[in-house]
Amino acid sequence: MYSDLAVFSGRAHPELAQAISDRVGRPLGDVDIFEFSNENIFVQFKENIRQLDVYLVQPFVTPVSTSIMELLIMIDAARRASAGRITAVIPYYGYGRSDKKDQPRVPITARLVANMLETAGADRILTMDLHAGQIQGFFNVPVDELTALYVLGRYFRERGDMSNTTVLSPDVGGAKRARNMARQIGAPLAVVDKERSGNDESASATGLIGDVRGRHVIISDEEILTGGTIVAAVNIAIANGAKTVTAACTHAVLSGEAVKRICNLPIDELVVTDTVPLPPHKQDPKVRVLSVAPLFGDAIGRIHSGQSVGALFQ
Amino acid sequence: MYSDLAVFSGRAHPELAQAISDRVGRPLGDVDIFEFSNENIFVQFKENIRQLDVYLVQPFVTPVSTSIMELLIMIDAARRASAGRITAVIPYYGYGRSDKKDQPRVPITARLVANMLETAGADRILTMDLHAGQIQGFFNVPVDELTALYVLGRYFRERGDMSNTTVLSPDVGGAKRARNMARQIGAPLAVVDKERSGNDESASATGLIGDVRGRHVIISDEEILTGGTIVAAVNIAIANGAKTVTAACTHAVLSGEAVKRICNLPIDELVVTDTVPLPPHKQDPKVRVLSVAPLFGDAIGRIHSGQSVGALFQ
Amino acid sequence: MYSDLAVFSGRAHPELAQAISDRVGRPLGDVDIFEFSNENIFVQFKENIRQLDVYLVQPFVTPVSTSIMELLIMIDAARRASAGRITAVIPYYGYGRSDKKDQPRVPITARLVANMLETAGADRILTMDLHAGQIQGFFNVPVDELTALYVLGRYFRERGDMSNTTVLSPDVGGAKRARNMARQIGAPLAVVDKERSGNDESASATGLIGDVRGRHVIISDEEILTGGTIVAAVNIAIANGAKTVTAACTHAVLSGEAVKRICNLPIDELVVTDTVPLPPHKQDPKVRVLSVAPLFGDAIGRIHSGQSVGALFQ
Amino acid sequence: MYSDLAVFSGRAHPELAQAISDRVGRPLGDVDIFEFSNENIFVQFKENIRQLDVYLVQPFVTPVSTSIMELLIMIDAARRASAGRITAVIPYYGYGRSDKKDQPRVPITARLVANMLETAGADRILTMDLHAGQIQGFFNVPVDELTALYVLGRYFRERGDMSNTTVLSPDVGGAKRARNMARQIGAPLAVVDKERSGNDESASATGLIGDVRGRHVIISDEEILTGGTIVAAVNIAIANGAKTVTAACTHAVLSGEAVKRICNLPIDELVVTDTVPLPPHKQDPKVRVLSVAPLFGDAIGRIHSGQSVGALFQ
Amino acid sequence: MYSDLAVFSGRAHPELAQAISDRVGRPLGDVDIFEFSNENIFVQFKENIRQLDVYLVQPFVTPVSTSIMELLIMIDAARRASAGRITAVIPYYGYGRSDKKDQPRVPITARLVANMLETAGADRILTMDLHAGQIQGFFNVPVDELTALYVLGRYFRERGDMSNTTVLSPDVGGAKRARNMARQIGAPLAVVDKERSGNDESASATGLIGDVRGRHVIISDEEILTGGTIVAAVNIAIANGAKTVTAACTHAVLSGEAVKRICNLPIDELVVTDTVPLPPHKQDPKVRVLSVAPLFGDAIGRIHSGQSVGALFQ
Amino acid sequence: MYSDLAVFSGRAHPELAQAISDRVGRPLGDVDIFEFSNENIFVQFKENIRQLDVYLVQPFVTPVSTSIMELLIMIDAARRASAGRITAVIPYYGYGRSDKKDQPRVPITARLVANMLETAGADRILTMDLHAGQIQGFFNVPVDELTALYVLGRYFRERGDMSNTTVLSPDVGGAKRARNMARQIGAPLAVVDKERSGNDESASATGLIGDVRGRHVIISDEEILTGGTIVAAVNIAIANGAKTVTAACTHAVLSGEAVKRICNLPIDELVVTDTVPLPPHKQDPKVRVLSVAPLFGDAIGRIHSGQSVGALFQ
Repeated sequence: MYSDLAVFSGRAHPELAQAISDRVGRPLGDVDIFEFSNENIFVQFKENIRQLDVYLVQPFVTPVSTSIMELLIMIDAARRASAGRITAVIPYYGYGRSDKKDQPRVPITARLVANMLETAGADRILTMDLHAGQIQGFFNVPVDELTALYVLGRYFRERGDMSNTTVLSPDVGGAKRARNMARQIGAPLAVVDKERSGNDESASATGLIGDVRGRHVIISDEEILTGGTIVAAVNIAIANGAKTVTAACTHAVLSGEAVKRICNLPIDELVVTDTVPLPPHKQDPKVRVLSVAPLFGDAIGRIHSGQSVGALFQ
Repeated sequence: MYSDLAVFSGRAHPELAQAISDRVGRPLGDVDIFEFSNENIFVQFKENIRQLDVYLVQPFVTPVSTSIMELLIMIDAARRASAGRITAVIPYYGYGRSDKKDQPRVPITARLVANMLETAGADRILTMDLHAGQIQGFFNVPVDELTALYVLGRYFRERGDMSNTTVLSPDVGGAKRARNMARQIGAPLAVVDKERSGNDESASATGLIGDVRGRHVIISDEEILTGGTIVAAVNIAIANGAKTVTAACTHAVLSGEAVKRICNLPIDELVVTDTVPLPPHKQDPKVRVLSVAPLFGDAIGRIHSGQSVGALFQ
Repeated sequence: MYSDLAVFSGRAHPELAQAISDRVGRPLGDVDIFEFSNENIFVQFKENIRQLDVYLVQPFVTPVSTSIMELLIMIDAARRASAGRITAVIPYYGYGRSDKKDQPRVPITARLVANMLETAGADRILTMDLHAGQIQGFFNVPVDELTALYVLGRYFRERGDMSNTTVLSPDVGGAKRARNMARQIGAPLAVVDKERSGNDESASATGLIGDVRGRHVIISDEEILTGGTIVAAVNIAIANGAKTVTAACTHAVLSGEAVKRICNLPIDELVVTDTVPLPPHKQDPKVRVLSVAPLFGDAIGRIHSGQSVGALFQ
Repeated sequence: MYSDLAVFSGRAHPELAQAISDRVGRPLGDVDIFEFSNENIFVQFKENIRQLDVYLVQPFVTPVSTSIMELLIMIDAARRASAGRITAVIPYYGYGRSDKKDQPRVPITARLVANMLETAGADRILTMDLHAGQIQGFFNVPVDELTALYVLGRYFRERGDMSNTTVLSPDVGGAKRARNMARQIGAPLAVVDKERSGNDESASATGLIGDVRGRHVIISDEEILTGGTIVAAVNIAIANGAKTVTAACTHAVLSGEAVKRICNLPIDELVVTDTVPLPPHKQDPKVRVLSVAPLFGDAIGRIHSGQSVGALFQ
Repeated sequence: MYSDLAVFSGRAHPELAQAISDRVGRPLGDVDIFEFSNENIFVQFKENIRQLDVYLVQPFVTPVSTSIMELLIMIDAARRASAGRITAVIPYYGYGRSDKKDQPRVPITARLVANMLETAGADRILTMDLHAGQIQGFFNVPVDELTALYVLGRYFRERGDMSNTTVLSPDVGGAKRARNMARQIGAPLAVVDKERSGNDESASATGLIGDVRGRHVIISDEEILTGGTIVAAVNIAIANGAKTVTAACTHAVLSGEAVKRICNLPIDELVVTDTVPLPPHKQDPKVRVLSVAPLFGDAIGRIHSGQSVGALFQ
Repeated sequence: MYSDLAVFSGRAHPELAQAISDRVGRPLGDVDIFEFSNENIFVQFKENIRQLDVYLVQPFVTPVSTSIMELLIMIDAARRASAGRITAVIPYYGYGRSDKKDQPRVPITARLVANMLETAGADRILTMDLHAGQIQGFFNVPVDELTALYVLGRYFRERGDMSNTTVLSPDVGGAKRARNMARQIGAPLAVVDKERSGNDESASATGLIGDVRGRHVIISDEEILTGGTIVAAVNIAIANGAKTVTAACTHAVLSGEAVKRICNLPIDELVVTDTVPLPPHKQDPKVRVLSVAPLFGDAIGRIHSGQSVGALFQ
């Protein structure tokens, strides 16, 4: 339907955008983005994009508000420049935890941002491992949600024997997601319920549901922020007799001292993807980064040519 | 803001609407609803409702498509009749499980229905125990989501000593909800992972994460459909040495032979609420129905007078 | 504009969808539709439909609410599956009589359903013989309204000499539509005003405006529900000296005992089309069904290739 | 809900607005409306209207495009001036005949204008005797459609004995509306089918369905434009032996020489209402104008205070 | 994206539309437009336009309300006729001065009209020299704003030596626009501040900021209505010692006696473009009309083929 | 209409919000706002706000993207908490200069932000001295634009004799705004055209249109960013013989070294308002801050009670 495609990057994660663009087989498009002295963001596409199939790559990473605003402004500029179709490529969709009112008088920011993207003019969304799959339903426009599950699972299966492995969900809310990882690598599941205040002594002592004694434990989550949840899970796993512990997530936000806190623990590895930039001060020998750029690149190629994206995962 | 309120019932669950209306302290409004020979639904409000604060009570129960269409038609009629504000009171919001695309080329019907309600003219939604809290975010209009958690929890605490009790989630996806019940009654949590295909023999034999041996087990879910999940959970609990088993849920859809299948098991009780009608053939000595009509009635009173609804749960 | 087209059928009238699809010259697309035990409808397109020109065939027939909901859900699924353009093909658009407020505090359901279709994501509508042409204006998206007038007219002209024929409208509201049929076959018009309470004795005795004595009468309406109106018209025609009577309509809803009631009268034929399924128990030697599938198939072909649909009728 | 109401008039029909305002019991609000030399319309409300319940009176009469644009501009100004609620009072809703696509590639202007009014900011519509009731459904906002039927009917009943009267619809499309008048005054119905090309000689000679011989005939229509249709109906009635003929309509557009053409015929009276201004050159001794200002005034009072408008007609 | 393009003209300025169409290299499309006796505008496209890239040419010139309504109706008809993309080509966008609330309770009609165009179904706008560039932002759809600046500038540079020329803005509000012309032809700027009530005697006597003594003055504005502003500027220029005076504008509305008033002054020329029709009674030997049809034609060609429009001006 | 009002502040400028709130005569409302470690902003209203008339104060100041996002999130939370009406109080509306496409393929961010505010749920806007008045028209909801013109003008008139004063616009684009100030204080106008490349030597030497020799010059602008424009204007004024120079603006963004650069010049004063916070490092003896909090407080009081806001300026 669209004569050609073009991929542009915001300022949030140009390395990922470049890698995606390489996979697509096109040079990154030329766009000028900077801030005036009053912090107002300026965007100008330096190439004609009339009727093109445009992909704008911008994960919602630090500085978060700026990354979001910048993407919205890019969309507005692209729409007014008569782009044929605009796909917002958001490898990490922030604000995913603000997805419901679990207290009175709070926002549902994940929906608000969805509304903003649609109002600005995004025709579709391409993203990965949302905090909750329901966030797809915050959009009326089509959403393609990729997953790093297979990338991570393949890595673990290739790393070594899985026969004595247990996947551990670091909290009850993520149990289903961890269960998917467990199935992916053919392992059983255990769950941390660290805030439990029940009267079952042995369990409450450890905060663990299920069994990890003598097993290789993979703690699997969709994102790591300060690392507090992961640290607690590692400690619980060790206290309950885990043989080894590996931590894994898709979105390595790793704010503050998260990397140091986690890597100082007796873990084997912290396995993450590159949806979020990992600046030098967050790098560590224990941190292993798997790239999802090939997935995004292939998905863009398939969207552009009208092929099934789901088929990427079959 | 609105001079007065009026509560009307669709045909889906008039008993509940009557009970809610009684709690509000008003007679149910007069509305004529029937179907022509071609099954087209006719609605006519028999009272002037101009500028009134109107509440339309309709859970999405059998016949489901008709209940949904009928509510939409009631909203359309109320809007065109110049109602001041229209609140759709949906004690059981069906299609909650269709809340994300977990397979290619499927709908997100829970969002579709949200769009339908807003387009028809609903100004706000009052509901209970959504399948996922994120469904609140499928709406742009304000949603007040009540919960039966306290009603059920209070019942259990009043029924007897909780000190040797464990709450069991019948599947991994509902673990967080069961955990909330566990905390409400001060009990530990266990989780059924019945589809697990891992290589940990003892666990895979039972499909149970956590421990229920010698304990009073409360299986807690938000809705029961055919009962298959509950039946499996009861069997697993018993196989793992549970002392007694009670099943509980908010929404007693109980389709087909669900009541018989569940009550034939060696359970103490099946505790449900009245968000879904329980016709005579679904009643059983083991089924105990707790009414949520007082909660809905109080919430309506507070919404009408501008008081906090959240305060109902504090 | 769209690389290819695909035709899918809901569960309402697969025979018609198949016949349309045959005319288009494509196999019917593969879509999975069923209901869970809680009556929630599940839809999954089993083929990739990205960027395709998709046609979803579903008349609003029994069970009506389900047929409507199912079409809306199909549209939602198609939109989220990135269909290029979605045409709702609704051979019989129910709720056509709910097209205005002729009493206080009633809905305009025909508009409500139009809003639902647009909100769900229908890009255009293809339908036939609306209860009122104004229903086209309930939509903002383009509507192609076909008519069975020529199919029926041709049938009558081929059946025999029209020179002694009068077309009879069974009620005043349908006079204009009957007039169109009259012109189509070159016959004069008469009108039943059966509820008339005037003081003109001879006319009020019969409820007939115009003259049918000694003539072949064709009673022409756009839909027949219970048949009460048709039965009255047949009786009036006979009482006023009609030589023969034929009944005709586009949409053969024929609820309850309609077929039996009508065919038991001394009529020659009941001529209908296949916009509504005619199950075996509604079939009768006097019922003749003309297919409109060729019209729909040709219209779809023309819409897809950007040719005039109006030219079909010239 | 709204502290007070205010009625303003556009330039289309200030006499009617004044009469409505008098009936409401308020002075007409002060608004400045004029055109600059480039014909751009300027509107300024000269009174504070924040949070008021505002009624803007403007029938769509000559110059029609200007009357429509002017009303839209008034609504825009009222909305931006923070009016609490805006009701567009449109005694004559022009473009009613453009209510469906009866030819290829024509507009549905009655829907377009409805969209314009809603987009500009009208919260509700108050109108009279739409060309088709379905035009109500062109709006999503509430529409109160008044009718002059009772005003006209009462006039005829008070004018003299109705026992030998027949109501004549001047064309087939208006038969239902004429039937309503017939019932209102207890008379039978006849219908002109002047374009009929059938082969029934006696009828085709006259173009009349039904009988008017020796009767007092009231030709009833909802609007009269050039008068061609009425003139033909009068001639047909006389040719078929009518004793007397009276013409009646709600909307006296009466363009060009309509008044002269009609009043030159041997009719008793041309009875109309004041929804459309009747300038001196259109006045004639045979033209009788009944005012609908009391109806509009009472309806505004009821809308403002939240009383039923339908009750006006019971 | 679109198989072919088609250009149609409303009744406002067929000569310009023809010239544009010639430049595009296509015959003007066939469309039927007229008014019924009740002034209701009728539009019918006489050619199939399904999926075509349609351009509708209509400046907002006298009769202004009719020109606007007519364009809206054309858009509605084109949309319902399944046009692929609709571009409203509005060489002169009237109501540009109603672009903000500079007094209480006035409309912002330029935004209202933008909303109307979008609601009717315009997919994009092509216009020239808006009263304020911000009016682009009144639209959500893409706007291509052309400018006559280069056409006018080139004319002046080719007419003669610019070395002793000053550009004069006839009022303070237009200073920036006049400055652009000044730069275009390499001349300094002066500004009329004719309403100034300051106490600086020499300046207030003349109302002139800057210096024109002994210079060739070009008074440059974007539109001329009654000409009052231009007449005052000419007089001020002469009173301040200008050697010669030329007046120039893009949009020659020239209402009433504007041409006579201006051309009776000792000016060399009144240079305008053809965005507004110049009927014979407005023509004068001093009036020189430059055509912008080539610009519009080229812009349409570029929009259709997805080339940059901005490149036209580089 | 609304039972009571409540004023809340975002984190952008709590001092101004407090001063406004004091003027309104209410304590600032209690709202919790902070960022999680991943920079996601959290908002929770700590008081019930159902059906209240809520005012959210947040100028778009540093950090700009965060201030905008935070306001949007506050609006979302307020809407979902069932606020009766939400007014976004934006004393400084950033991105005002991005109000048109003056280059190819750039955004119109001022419109984008307007769309965001409306989509989030703002019912109205209260702001001051927009970069262009047309930005009002970027909103469909009512905008009350206050002006600091009278506050500044009164200050100057009270400061001393105005008889030998000239107002200088620092650039051509701001000439009209400066003219308004000139009229306010009864002074003549001059304009800087600093980029002029004309061939008029004396003027091009100075870049000044008009005369400031021997006069007290007030340089008046609506906002000062880096101060570069003001610095140039001061230098031009002095070079052209100004006796004294004062700089004035509404919005004191004053980024980087702006204060130092300006106050190091031989100016009397830099007069600004408090729409933008002035942190200690930007304060200087020459900077005089006039508060607009009383204006905002009075405007809020009038909006709440339905009184004219325009009357504040008469």
